[in-house]
Amino acid sequence: MKAEIVSVGTELLLGTTINTDAAAVALLLSEYGINVYWQTVVGDNPGRVVEAVQRAKGRADIIITTGGLGPTCDDLTKNALAEAFGLELELNKGEEEWLRNLWRERRYTSLDLTPNNLQQVMLPAGSTPLRNDWGTAPGCTFKAGGVLVIMLPGPPRECGPMLEHRVRPILAALSDGVIASHTIHFFGIGESEMEYRLRDYMNSLSNPTLAPYAKHGECLVRVTASAATRALAEEMMAPVIERVKAEFGELAYGMDTANLAEFTTRLLIERGVTVAAAESCTGGELTKAITDIPGASAALKGGVVVYTNEAKTRLLGVPAGLIEEKGAVSHEVAVELARRVREALGSDFGVGITGLAGPDGDGVHEVGTVFVSLADAERVWVREKHITARDREQVRLYACQNAFDMLRRRLTGCTVDEIRVDP
Amino acid sequence: MKAEIVSVGTELLLGTTINTDAAAVALLLSEYGINVYWQTVVGDNPGRVVEAVQRAKGRADIIITTGGLGPTCDDLTKNALAEAFGLELELNKGEEEWLRNLWRERRYTSLDLTPNNLQQVMLPAGSTPLRNDWGTAPGCTFKAGGVLVIMLPGPPRECGPMLEHRVRPILAALSDGVIASHTIHFFGIGESEMEYRLRDYMNSLSNPTLAPYAKHGECLVRVTASAATRALAEEMMAPVIERVKAEFGELAYGMDTANLAEFTTRLLIERGVTVAAAESCTGGELTKAITDIPGASAALKGGVVVYTNEAKTRLLGVPAGLIEEKGAVSHEVAVELARRVREALGSDFGVGITGLAGPDGDGVHEVGTVFVSLADAERVWVREKHITARDREQVRLYACQNAFDMLRRRLTGCTVDEIRVDP
Repeated sequence: MKAEIVSVGTELLLGTTINTDAAAVALLLSEYGINVYWQTVVGDNPGRVVEAVQRAKGRADIIITTGGLGPTCDDLTKNALAEAFGLELELNKGEEEWLRNLWRERRYTSLDLTPNNLQQVMLPAGSTPLRNDWGTAPGCTFKAGGVLVIMLPGPPRECGPMLEHRVRPILAALSDGVIASHTIHFFGIGESEMEYRLRDYMNSLSNPTLAPYAKHGECLVRVTASAATRALAEEMMAPVIERVKAEFGELAYGMDTANLAEFTTRLLIERGVTVAAAESCTGGELTKAITDIPGASAALKGGVVVYTNEAKTRLLGVPAGLIEEKGAVSHEVAVELARRVREALGSDFGVGITGLAGPDGDGVHEVGTVFVSLADAERVWVREKHITARDREQVRLYACQNAFDMLRRRLTGCTVDEIRVDP
Repeated sequence: MKAEIVSVGTELLLGTTINTDAAAVALLLSEYGINVYWQTVVGDNPGRVVEAVQRAKGRADIIITTGGLGPTCDDLTKNALAEAFGLELELNKGEEEWLRNLWRERRYTSLDLTPNNLQQVMLPAGSTPLRNDWGTAPGCTFKAGGVLVIMLPGPPRECGPMLEHRVRPILAALSDGVIASHTIHFFGIGESEMEYRLRDYMNSLSNPTLAPYAKHGECLVRVTASAATRALAEEMMAPVIERVKAEFGELAYGMDTANLAEFTTRLLIERGVTVAAAESCTGGELTKAITDIPGASAALKGGVVVYTNEAKTRLLGVPAGLIEEKGAVSHEVAVELARRVREALGSDFGVGITGLAGPDGDGVHEVGTVFVSLADAERVWVREKHITARDREQVRLYACQNAFDMLRRRLTGCTVDEIRVDP
């Protein structure tokens, strides 16, 4: 089965909005083994929407559109789809009632339901509305000319849950056989080296397949198998997964997880282990990442953002003399941060991060120099990293990732790091 | 002039990567008044890349491709473009030498330059390489059949600076006249209400034009004028900008800034004013956002992440009895957080955030309830917000934005908020 994604929105063509919807749609389709060969973006222009849909009709079994369902005069997708399939638009009474109720309950604005809002509940004749519990513009679906059409709202916070709760059941009902996949996550290796080391093996496989890629400073390998049943697909993938993991040893940290931050936070929660963090150059990014996960309060005792030397002294009592002598970006200060924040908050582990995120230097270290430390009751480990990434954001991300990597290694019995310090 | 964007990458069609490049390309094109009517995404499939390029040739003056320039066997864009325009690929000696030097200097991996890397310096005959100082795969540009082709690498950290430093000069040389635009930023109003209030005025304009949109929980209005000179365009925009600002009063916080967090941080730096933050539910997101800005150490004294009740007491001395009596999510605790973190770090302002980000409730408050506080030497202001957003991430973002809004209002002489508390 083949699907095509048509994204509608002048803001996408102007670049003021990033097309996250298309990725979310594609991800769901790939879960059901539905291939996407084309994805087209057009503006709020009925003629070009119709043209894009006409072309998609000729090469796909499913067309999914995003965007252009809202209340403004630019929202023309329903009109265009109706035209492309020769259908009329009709006011959907059920959705109208729902929308009027919603407006009363939520009082989104200081105004009454403005007339432009009713445009949202005009749907192509014969279509089934897809209730939008996350916004105001319903989606809809219809089948015409052998093509299944699904129209979704553009705002990602609406499109995402609509995919999960409205589109997934439709796709699940369509598919025979299964496409199953697992993603193995690595930290500490580049995509190019990984691809080089796996290339021959990858090329020797056809089902399952292997695909390496890079994301958020991590490397991932996606293993995908197609089979009659889920169990069979799993059986086919198992030896491939084993072989990839064996090739990279401790660099493989997990499977089917969001990223290293989430993996490590869940591991902390699972193990009932607590952490506290003292962050200088990352300014709260580490604790922010931990608290992205619901339930993080079981793992995070708290943290301090000691962005200035003064804060290091005032909040943690790091001796001003030590900072002066060794510098804020130093092995010694990193040790104090981890050790002292652990004591201050009474956690099992303390994490310290100090470094130079740039773009300005300090006259001593190269931009990208970071010291990341981990303390438990007995020891302190420190990693000194010289991150060659060329921007501040990436230096800070890698610094946090190194902290998470040290934690997950400590918790899973891997070697933690280069340097060991006994208090 | 019309341009078309062709994004190449199976990872885009699988949804494992979000197409940020297309937005970055589009944004730059729109700066030069170059219209984009179509954007196409295809996988690492030479046939479909050729097809997409053939179609683009027929309707655009400029084709910009992203992706598929790297060292892996999937990287086929140069081959496809050469085929579409009937050109041969040639090893570019200059780029080869540069790549070999780079490899020696940077030692990206533990391996020598692997043979697959040379594929990156095979360019269509007659093209001009675009040196990639942010990665290893050069871009290139050529003109054939009246169409200007520009090929850029896919990784956003390479594509972004390539656009700025390699493509911008090419576009600047092409354009006559200027397209200038300004973006007015608002906090505290929804897109739908804004559009409703501006619709008639918007429709009455043709040059300049107005376009409202929403982003990161803010509303924006983009004003764009096309004229013979920059000065003339500015003159045309000025009264429109005035009128929009007047309509929304204090809700308009700035112009041509990244977002409220960045605007406020720069304002703090400019004014030489310092802040310290005590964050509960946001877990470091506020200080992370402040420290996203280089030079933030002048504005941020430091912060504490008091995600647990214990941390509120241990780090700031908030009385355990008060937390027990009033609850951690309360007006009273918010006051203590702002006041105490300000004192602990000796800053001009203290910010406190406590709330319920969800998805789980606490049995007392609705998910989305947050108290955001701001303390200076004389007063504490508290905002109680009931954020109807439906996910944790958005609740936390809005909480931080309210803190920034209170700060920027205090610094610019606007009303700060509903509730005033005298210590």
